Amino acid sequence: MKRLKTEYVAGGGLIDRRSLLAGGVSFLAATTIRPVVAAIEGDKTIAEDFPRWTKTLAGQGSPYGEPSRYEKSVVRKLLLPAAPENAGTSAWLTPIDQLQGIITPNGLHFGSYHYGVPEIDPNKHELLIHGLVDRPLKYTVEHLLRYPMVSSTRFLECSGNTAINAMSPFTGNETCQDLYGLVSCSEWVGVRVSDLLSEAGLTKKARWIIAEGADSGSHSRSIPVSKMLDDGIIALYQNGERLRAEQGFPMRLLLPGWEGNTNVKYLSRFEVTDRPAFTSHESGLYTEHLTSGHAEGFSFHMEVKSAIMHPSAGQLLNEKGFYEISGLAWSGRGKISGVDVSADNGVSWARAQLQGPVHDKALTRFSIPWRWDGESTILQSRAIDEEGRVQPTRKVWKQKYASPTFNHYNAIQAWQIDKDGSVSNVFV
Amino acid sequence: MKRLKTEYVAGGGLIDRRSLLAGGVSFLAATTIRPVVAAIEGDKTIAEDFPRWTKTLAGQGSPYGEPSRYEKSVVRKLLLPAAPENAGTSAWLTPIDQLQGIITPNGLHFGSYHYGVPEIDPNKHELLIHGLVDRPLKYTVEHLLRYPMVSSTRFLECSGNTAINAMSPFTGNETCQDLYGLVSCSEWVGVRVSDLLSEAGLTKKARWIIAEGADSGSHSRSIPVSKMLDDGIIALYQNGERLRAEQGFPMRLLLPGWEGNTNVKYLSRFEVTDRPAFTSHESGLYTEHLTSGHAEGFSFHMEVKSAIMHPSAGQLLNEKGFYEISGLAWSGRGKISGVDVSADNGVSWARAQLQGPVHDKALTRFSIPWRWDGESTILQSRAIDEEGRVQPTRKVWKQKYASPTFNHYNAIQAWQIDKDGSVSNVFV
Repeated sequence: MKRLKTEYVAGGGLIDRRSLLAGGVSFLAATTIRPVVAAIEGDKTIAEDFPRWTKTLAGQGSPYGEPSRYEKSVVRKLLLPAAPENAGTSAWLTPIDQLQGIITPNGLHFGSYHYGVPEIDPNKHELLIHGLVDRPLKYTVEHLLRYPMVSSTRFLECSGNTAINAMSPFTGNETCQDLYGLVSCSEWVGVRVSDLLSEAGLTKKARWIIAEGADSGSHSRSIPVSKMLDDGIIALYQNGERLRAEQGFPMRLLLPGWEGNTNVKYLSRFEVTDRPAFTSHESGLYTEHLTSGHAEGFSFHMEVKSAIMHPSAGQLLNEKGFYEISGLAWSGRGKISGVDVSADNGVSWARAQLQGPVHDKALTRFSIPWRWDGESTILQSRAIDEEGRVQPTRKVWKQKYASPTFNHYNAIQAWQIDKDGSVSNVFV
Repeated sequence: MKRLKTEYVAGGGLIDRRSLLAGGVSFLAATTIRPVVAAIEGDKTIAEDFPRWTKTLAGQGSPYGEPSRYEKSVVRKLLLPAAPENAGTSAWLTPIDQLQGIITPNGLHFGSYHYGVPEIDPNKHELLIHGLVDRPLKYTVEHLLRYPMVSSTRFLECSGNTAINAMSPFTGNETCQDLYGLVSCSEWVGVRVSDLLSEAGLTKKARWIIAEGADSGSHSRSIPVSKMLDDGIIALYQNGERLRAEQGFPMRLLLPGWEGNTNVKYLSRFEVTDRPAFTSHESGLYTEHLTSGHAEGFSFHMEVKSAIMHPSAGQLLNEKGFYEISGLAWSGRGKISGVDVSADNGVSWARAQLQGPVHDKALTRFSIPWRWDGESTILQSRAIDEEGRVQPTRKVWKQKYASPTFNHYNAIQAWQIDKDGSVSNVFV
């Protein structure tokens, strides 16, 4: 077998993909992947033991399919149980490190709730637009389904995603799912908010819109009119099918790139106003405390962020040799323009490959080939968006935000690889 | 309220979208959508009757979510039950007309089976590559999961999709799901076939690869090496999560744009040869009979095709007025470049808007505003792909294919709109 010389682009074993593809020699043959494929000799090319499923006629599936029974461990994890003492607040963490590509299947999309998951009868639900408008209007779900639809592949992220790294002075045995499970990405389809506002007619004083949900606590946020007109969507479909109850059935507000809680689920009311309402959540939980002594409210944008998903905390590398480092990057400011990866604790960095097409304000998959030498090391990723914003270090992030603030944490993630192949969260 | 003059771009009520968006007047205000939104007077802007879910703390969701209980009718439909008399052949039709956007959720992806849906233990499954190779190789699932992954958003279509229109001399009360339910679209992620073939090393005589599944009938197809090297993928993930049993868990072959049955599920063997195997399915069911007297085997490409999904057969228009005509187009030859729509039985046509980004060999959503005057009429769509191929009329299609051939039907679809708003399949 021909072997190309593997060219490294940075320390710790990061490989130049182009060097591997050159000369018709396979990407993998040039690495230490060899031990994982077993050569077969002579006539033993046909399996001798035929398993059960090759010999018996199988079943026929179901009207609404389910994941493989062998994937039962790939499920969401409850962060906070919905209980009276939590005032209905609960959160489901997506097993984001066990997924691939950029789409999150609907059954695994993260959820974050202040008042549980209501099951709303769509025939009894309406969207009301009132306040500083020429004519208040009410829309039934059936009516909205007749409107022109737009499609957007966009991420949603809870502003409290990765809060553990913001709050804890030390790292523990938290997994990637614990740390990054409050971000997901879907194809959202719905009606432009601007079409409905145009019908209602904004008056000259209209500056803000209070978006309210039909859940028992009437979760509400004040949103600038400009954002609503720019790219606000009344989402009715997610990844092809109608929204699920956990995502706001029969409709939710979608504000691409903005913190999850502004994407009001169970949307039932827009009150157009000249000022924000300072609702309890926007004045409390979703206002950040800064070391400067100021408070930062209406901190809508989710900033540029990334994490390596393979390998990541909670996973195990079974042997040294070739791996593909693969992760996700996103920014509420626009498209991801690049991701740098380090395999030697930040001494050297190499640019990863982005899996296209790169969508605006969507999860973006990056990857880079890597040869693990079996020694302990630290992996990191650092994303850059099209506005040129770069992920800060944890130290820089902590210089801005005061304790007990834990929202909007977007610092560079470091994973410790130990000699035994275990991967864990680490601060550097 | 200002009203713009609605500009029509073709007969039967097709509207120029640009005329509606001009001058800051809403898209909808200029149409007869008015009756569907109820104006509200005076102080009655807040709902007086609060439904149950606004007053009680709700439940907390589940580790793997499910669709809304109000969407129970949006399920797949069994075309042929898996039964001994069908030799295990069965098919599940996607409710494609009830979806939006381009992604098909995994639970609703169509399935077509010759030997049922086996539940394969991934720890006992391997992919064998042998035949005209330098070194036969066996890959476990665990090994393949370490390989570099690529992502592709691609449609899959059973070559028998829309067979009713090919076979039946008359139309009946078949629905859009009955006619178009054997096409779906997903984000597929997996390993390039070319990477594995490069490792095994193709010999000079290698021209074909027999791809075989581990189902009880060993479903097999002969695939040219050139296609495998071009864009063949060993798919391991679908829309983020691992393949489901119904889609070939633990792995399937993905051949973008090629007829569904070549995308071998439960993939377990590649035998590299110098000629096709003429397996039973490729010699029989998947060979078409032509009116010229010839048989057309190895008819791999799914040709350019489209259908209007809203409105479509089985649906009902409740009232005259504004609707958005929305449909899907796709081509196994590349990207969709345009879709023309007629609302007056083919007398005049207008170009629909394509919902971007338009992916190569993927479902592509098109739409055009339409004002239904309440009279009976016929809607049609005609797709064009980037190779300039255009959907044929049914008459032209029938001039090529002889009875009883029913595969690869891609003629222009016509939907009859009756005065009572009912929509049905019609031949024109």
